[in-house]
Amino acid sequence: MTLSASEVNQLKHAPAVEGMLPVIHQRWSPRSFADREVSAADLARVFEAARWAPSSNNEQPWRYVVGVRNSGTHAKIAATLAGFNKAWAPKAPVLILGVANTRFSRNGRPNDYALYDLGAATVLITLQAVALGLTTHQMGGFDHDAIRKALEIPEDHALGSVMALGYLGEPGALADEHLIASEVTPRSRKPLSEIVFSAWGEPAQLA
Amino acid sequence: MTLSASEVNQLKHAPAVEGMLPVIHQRWSPRSFADREVSAADLARVFEAARWAPSSNNEQPWRYVVGVRNSGTHAKIAATLAGFNKAWAPKAPVLILGVANTRFSRNGRPNDYALYDLGAATVLITLQAVALGLTTHQMGGFDHDAIRKALEIPEDHALGSVMALGYLGEPGALADEHLIASEVTPRSRKPLSEIVFSAWGEPAQLA
Repeated sequence: MTLSASEVNQLKHAPAVEGMLPVIHQRWSPRSFADREVSAADLARVFEAARWAPSSNNEQPWRYVVGVRNSGTHAKIAATLAGFNKAWAPKAPVLILGVANTRFSRNGRPNDYALYDLGAATVLITLQAVALGLTTHQMGGFDHDAIRKALEIPEDHALGSVMALGYLGEPGALADEHLIASEVTPRSRKPLSEIVFSAWGEPAQLA
Repeated sequence: MTLSASEVNQLKHAPAVEGMLPVIHQRWSPRSFADREVSAADLARVFEAARWAPSSNNEQPWRYVVGVRNSGTHAKIAATLAGFNKAWAPKAPVLILGVANTRFSRNGRPNDYALYDLGAATVLITLQAVALGLTTHQMGGFDHDAIRKALEIPEDHALGSVMALGYLGEPGALADEHLIASEVTPRSRKPLSEIVFSAWGEPAQLA
């Protein structure tokens, strides 16, 4: 029996740890989006979150091209999606391409932190979305050359992700059994001992 | 007259927007840290936040080397800091180097999203820190070759930032007038019209 959207949403929450920001544990990346638009006010709020991200020299290298359903931009982004992303992501009411200016605006020199800072700003979008009852799924699986051409992204801007944004849909609405199975599988992460070291390869002693 | 730490903290909050996650507007990057240790339990919580970040193929490329005050790792990181970071950052009770595995563990192929995903995971540390009453400041200004050597970071791991983590200190405790001035200057960001487009260069219509 397929789980409902709200049952899946519970299942996907990370195990609770006291003192944690709830949105961090609640965020996950679904593939089923409901047939419901996102208001312009909420769109403004998710980008407001990105706006306040930290960045190297406060360069704020992030730029977003946003396509709402039935717009030319939405169609252009959807047309570049690769493989099985094509099967689910075009149904999301909002598709967003994130790019990063790879040069400092002050002096034109290379900004080695451009993609790093874009990643930071974009994950703030994902958290703010959760706070608003929305959900997101970022993808690297799209035709990078085609999207650059279709959206006229300048060469000095590096491509980040395409993000699907909208309200969570029913898992059963996904066309494919494999997609449904992945939609209802609990999330997994490496233990802290594999990612936090006191010296390289030595797990830090954390309470 | 110099402002107090709590007055500065208020000043640095972004202008309130209804419906926003408070920690996103409250996060800023101070240079004055109080002489107070961070508990191991809170260190575990900030890395738990990073742990649940999204990543390309769920690769979780982020690794952190954490040095607490009076440890060899803290001293090694502090020794690599550049310019005026040397004047304030070594006083932070925790210094953290973030690095990203640039190859997929499954097949050894290059992971073009490694730094992007590291940026995302690391900004979750900064938000979780705010939720715990802590504060953070990321720096790119350090000797990248020296830190790689001192902390024995493998060549296939790309360097992210060095982060200072601790409790906010009094601005007046900073040794330098320029540092104090920057500590009490309100934050600034580009307007949404410069970062969110409906097509390249055309500001999106947001409420």
